[in-house]
Amino acid sequence: MKIETLRWVDNKLEMIDQRILPASFEYIAYDSAASVAEGIRSMVVRGAPAIGVAAAYGVALEALRLQDASLIDFHSGMETGFVVLERSRPTAVNLFWALQRMRAVWIVARGKSSAAVAQRLLEEAHEILAEDIRINKAMGAFGAELLPDGARVLTHCNAGALATAGWGTALGVFRSAVEVGKKIFVIADETRPFLQGARLTAWEMVQEKIPVTLITDNMAGFMMSRGEVDAVVVGTDRVASNGDVANKIGTYMVAVLARRHNIPFYVACPLSTIDMSIASGADIPIEERSVDEVKGFRDYHWAAEGVKIRNPSFDVTPAELVSGLITEKGVVLQPDNAKLRALFE
Amino acid sequence: MKIETLRWVDNKLEMIDQRILPASFEYIAYDSAASVAEGIRSMVVRGAPAIGVAAAYGVALEALRLQDASLIDFHSGMETGFVVLERSRPTAVNLFWALQRMRAVWIVARGKSSAAVAQRLLEEAHEILAEDIRINKAMGAFGAELLPDGARVLTHCNAGALATAGWGTALGVFRSAVEVGKKIFVIADETRPFLQGARLTAWEMVQEKIPVTLITDNMAGFMMSRGEVDAVVVGTDRVASNGDVANKIGTYMVAVLARRHNIPFYVACPLSTIDMSIASGADIPIEERSVDEVKGFRDYHWAAEGVKIRNPSFDVTPAELVSGLITEKGVVLQPDNAKLRALFE
Repeated sequence: MKIETLRWVDNKLEMIDQRILPASFEYIAYDSAASVAEGIRSMVVRGAPAIGVAAAYGVALEALRLQDASLIDFHSGMETGFVVLERSRPTAVNLFWALQRMRAVWIVARGKSSAAVAQRLLEEAHEILAEDIRINKAMGAFGAELLPDGARVLTHCNAGALATAGWGTALGVFRSAVEVGKKIFVIADETRPFLQGARLTAWEMVQEKIPVTLITDNMAGFMMSRGEVDAVVVGTDRVASNGDVANKIGTYMVAVLARRHNIPFYVACPLSTIDMSIASGADIPIEERSVDEVKGFRDYHWAAEGVKIRNPSFDVTPAELVSGLITEKGVVLQPDNAKLRALFE
Repeated sequence: MKIETLRWVDNKLEMIDQRILPASFEYIAYDSAASVAEGIRSMVVRGAPAIGVAAAYGVALEALRLQDASLIDFHSGMETGFVVLERSRPTAVNLFWALQRMRAVWIVARGKSSAAVAQRLLEEAHEILAEDIRINKAMGAFGAELLPDGARVLTHCNAGALATAGWGTALGVFRSAVEVGKKIFVIADETRPFLQGARLTAWEMVQEKIPVTLITDNMAGFMMSRGEVDAVVVGTDRVASNGDVANKIGTYMVAVLARRHNIPFYVACPLSTIDMSIASGADIPIEERSVDEVKGFRDYHWAAEGVKIRNPSFDVTPAELVSGLITEKGVVLQPDNAKLRALFE
C-alpha cells in the first residue's frame, strides 16, 4: 500500500487525519494557510518533513485563495499566511525551512500577476513534496547498509511515510533494507502521549508486512538488557549545528539506554532538518503541548483529578550519544560541527 | 484521608478495586483463597506488600470456609488454597514470604481443631497487616532523612498506601518527610500500561495534599536533563541477595538516567521483599502479562490491528545503580550481598 500522507486534489490539499488512525482512515481537505496551520497545530499532520510539505502547500493555497484580490490585499494576506504557518508549531525546523523556501520563490516571482505567483508557489510545493520522497529514498539506501540482515531495530514515535510525503525517514530505512532483501524486525515504542508508535508506526509496518512488535515506552530498557535490540533508528525534528538532536519526547531516554548497552543509535535526518544557525540543542525551542494529552488519550481521561501535569513534546539527545546521522548525502558517523558544515559545502 | 487498601469486615476480606481508581472508589469482598488469588491476578490489589497481606488473608479465609469440613477435606483444601495463591503472580516475593509464614503457622497449629487453626491463621493475617504499616512507618522515618527540604522527587508506579496495608513504601517516605515538616514535590511517571502512576500515585498524593506533577514515562529523562529532579524513590517487588532490584517495568530506565545525571536512586524495601535465596536479578522470574494491556487501556484499544505485542511487567535494576535500599532497619547504601546478609543477622 502506498501511503499518500498529503495529496493535491481539486485545487485543495488533502491530508490523512492522523489523529484518528488506525481505527479510521480519512482525508481532510484544506484551502487556506490558516486551515493548514490549524491542521499542523492539532496534529492532523505531524512529523517534521510532513509539516514542512504541508506548510509549503499552505502558502500556495493562500496565494490561490487571494489571487483575485487587490495587490495590496494579496501581499498583506500572504504575509499573514506566512506568520500563521510559522506559529503553528515551534520545534520542527523543516516548517521554517519550507516557509523560507516558499518566501524566496514568492519574492522572486513578485513582479508577475497574482495568479502567476500563486501558480509558481504551487509548483514549488509540488516540488518540495516530490523532493521529500526522493530524499527519503536516498536516505533509506544509505541507512539500509547500516543494518545487518535479521536486525531487530527499535524506533520511537513515527518517522514513517506518515511523517513525510511518503516512504519515511527512519521507517524509510527499514523499507529500503527490506527492498534490498534484508529481513528487519521492528520494535515500536508506543510513544505516549499521542501514541504515534502504537497507532502509526505499527499500522505502517503492518501495511508493509514488515514484522513489528509494539512495546510501551518504558519497556525499551528491558528489551535492550535482554539482548533483544540490535540497533535504534529514529527521526528528528531539528538537529543543531553541533549534532544535538531534538526529537519526540522519550528519544533521549532511548539514546542513553542504547549507549549503556553498546547498541548503535542512528538518526535519519534529511538536510532540511539540520539547523546550522544554532550552536547546540540548548537553542532548540521545546514545545509544551496541552496537558489534556497526558490526562488520557483523546476524550478518555484516567489521571487523578487535581494533579499537575507537564507535557514537553520533544527532548534533546546530545551529539555524543548519536552513532550516526543518516542523510541523503550519506551517513555522518559521530556527528559534530565540522562534519555537518562539510555536508552543506 | 486514611487509605485502607485491605480491611476485614464481617468475616470477609475487602479490598479497594484498584482497576477502577480514581474514577470510582469501591471495595470488593472476598471469602476464599481462589477468589483472593483472582483478585491478585486481575490486579484488584497490586503492589508487593499488599499482595503479601492479601495472600495471608486468602489462607485465613480458606481455613474459615473449610473449618466445618472433614479433617481430610480441610487439609487437602488448604493445600490447594496455598497452591492457587502461590500461582497468582510470579515476581513479587512478598507473596511467597507471606504464604510461607502462614504455612508455618498452619503446621504449628495442626493438632488443634480446624476452627482453632482458622482462628490462628486469621490472627496471623491481622498481624501481617499491622506489621506492614509499622514497617512502612519505620522505613518512612529512615527514608525521610535522605530527602532535603524542598526536594523534587520522581517515583515510578505506585509504591503507596495502595501498594501496602497503608502508608506506603516509596510514598510512605514522602508522607514521613512531610510529617516531619519537609516540603516535598512529587513527580509521578504515569506507568504504562496499567497507569498506576497517573491513577493511583497521583490520586494518593492529591488526597494527601502533597504537590504532585504527572508526566508520561518517557518524560523522565527530559525532566532530569533540565535539572528538575533531585532524587528518585521507588518501591520493589523483589530484591536479590546481591542487591539487584526487580520493580515495575520502566524502573530500570529511570535508574540508568538517574546515574547519568548523578541523581540518587533509592529503593524503599521492607525486609520481606529481600530474597536471600537468589544470587542475582537474573534469577527473578519476570511476569509477562496479557498483551491486551498494551493495546490500549481497559476496553479502549488504539494499537494497530495485526501488530505483535510484548508485555513484560517488571524489569531488573542492577545493584550498581542503586544508591540505597531504605529498609525498616535503616538505609543500606550501595547494597551488596555482605550488607544484605548483615541485615538479617
